[in-house]
Amino acid sequence: MKKMPRFAVILSGCGRTDGSEIHESVTALLAIDNNGCSYQCFAPNIKQQAVINNLTSEISKEERNVLVESARIARGDIKPLEKLDINEFDCILFPGGMGAISNWCNFNIKGIDCDVEPSIANLLETAYKNKKIIGAMCIAPVLIAKVLGKYGITVTIGNDKKVADVIQKMGAVHENTDVLCACVDDKNLVVTTSAYMLASSIKEVATGANALVCSMINLKTNS
Amino acid sequence: MKKMPRFAVILSGCGRTDGSEIHESVTALLAIDNNGCSYQCFAPNIKQQAVINNLTSEISKEERNVLVESARIARGDIKPLEKLDINEFDCILFPGGMGAISNWCNFNIKGIDCDVEPSIANLLETAYKNKKIIGAMCIAPVLIAKVLGKYGITVTIGNDKKVADVIQKMGAVHENTDVLCACVDDKNLVVTTSAYMLASSIKEVATGANALVCSMINLKTNS
Repeated sequence: MKKMPRFAVILSGCGRTDGSEIHESVTALLAIDNNGCSYQCFAPNIKQQAVINNLTSEISKEERNVLVESARIARGDIKPLEKLDINEFDCILFPGGMGAISNWCNFNIKGIDCDVEPSIANLLETAYKNKKIIGAMCIAPVLIAKVLGKYGITVTIGNDKKVADVIQKMGAVHENTDVLCACVDDKNLVVTTSAYMLASSIKEVATGANALVCSMINLKTNS
Repeated sequence: MKKMPRFAVILSGCGRTDGSEIHESVTALLAIDNNGCSYQCFAPNIKQQAVINNLTSEISKEERNVLVESARIARGDIKPLEKLDINEFDCILFPGGMGAISNWCNFNIKGIDCDVEPSIANLLETAYKNKKIIGAMCIAPVLIAKVLGKYGITVTIGNDKKVADVIQKMGAVHENTDVLCACVDDKNLVVTTSAYMLASSIKEVATGANALVCSMINLKTNS
């Protein structure tokens, strides 16, 4: 029996304003499990750029750690990113949420000239060079474009013209894509879906997450 | 066209060790949406009993607020529990997680003689008297039994003998139930499912959450 693809799911905290978007993360894990694959969660062991109150959107004076907060989504079963051995996985999946552009990089502050957290940049380069399937949701494709745009990858963040323009300036191609579907770059093995960049319900997010995961599995199975 | 049931989903924080279990909460919201119903999230505006590191299970010195942390699961779309008008909802759903027995009541410290947060006790009494459908997952049925056990309700937390005994001492009946199914008390309009009390995967939790929500909808439709 063919071995099913193994997913590494990378988290950036817990909650849409300062970490990984929770619905996107959970529906991605569910889609992986529903399609018969296994997953292991990872997160960088770094301080969050900020702690944002999810009720008021105000900045809080607290400090929180990305790995510790990500553990809430992973139910404690999570490893620091430096423990990720690329040879143990076929697919690397990045859910969205503001943490993607505030903890994995500082795109929220510096835009196109943002700095990328070295462990994340290294993971993306290594995954690309080892022909792993890379998946990203919501705003996370901006991070993928920042690191891998030089290879001319194609991604989607839905249909937001301003963000799409930034992605193109990073060297990547942007393709408008329906919320229920995934944008598949089968040459570069990159799959993306818009999730809450476009979704108006959790059902739409779950459908898009399933499309993303299925496309990643198909790319692996046919590679 | 018949109006679909409206759900109030009550949260107790964000994360299994000190709040609402995230997979259970999200799969419940997804099941509500997938079955064509609407939901509004609520949480009591109170301090968490404790903040527990989800990676190490150690108690942290921080203080966090139940409503503010619950907002992470609800994407900010959440109201304080005192704003809940029982007339606006047909079904009241309580996901599990340690917050159910540490923030909604202090069962984790005081066991059977625990104190229940007054706003939660009042909600359960009002919901029961107004013939609303009450649903609970994982360890949350212990709270339901504490408040409504005097009415002889039947609930499940899976098959844990020790917890089942406590539930029976509270006056409720405990029924061993498979993780993929819901325990339905159609006389008292209480539906429960074991979720991570028994589940070994997120897929099992999602299947149980869907069984719970479908049974709640059926009770409402046939009442």
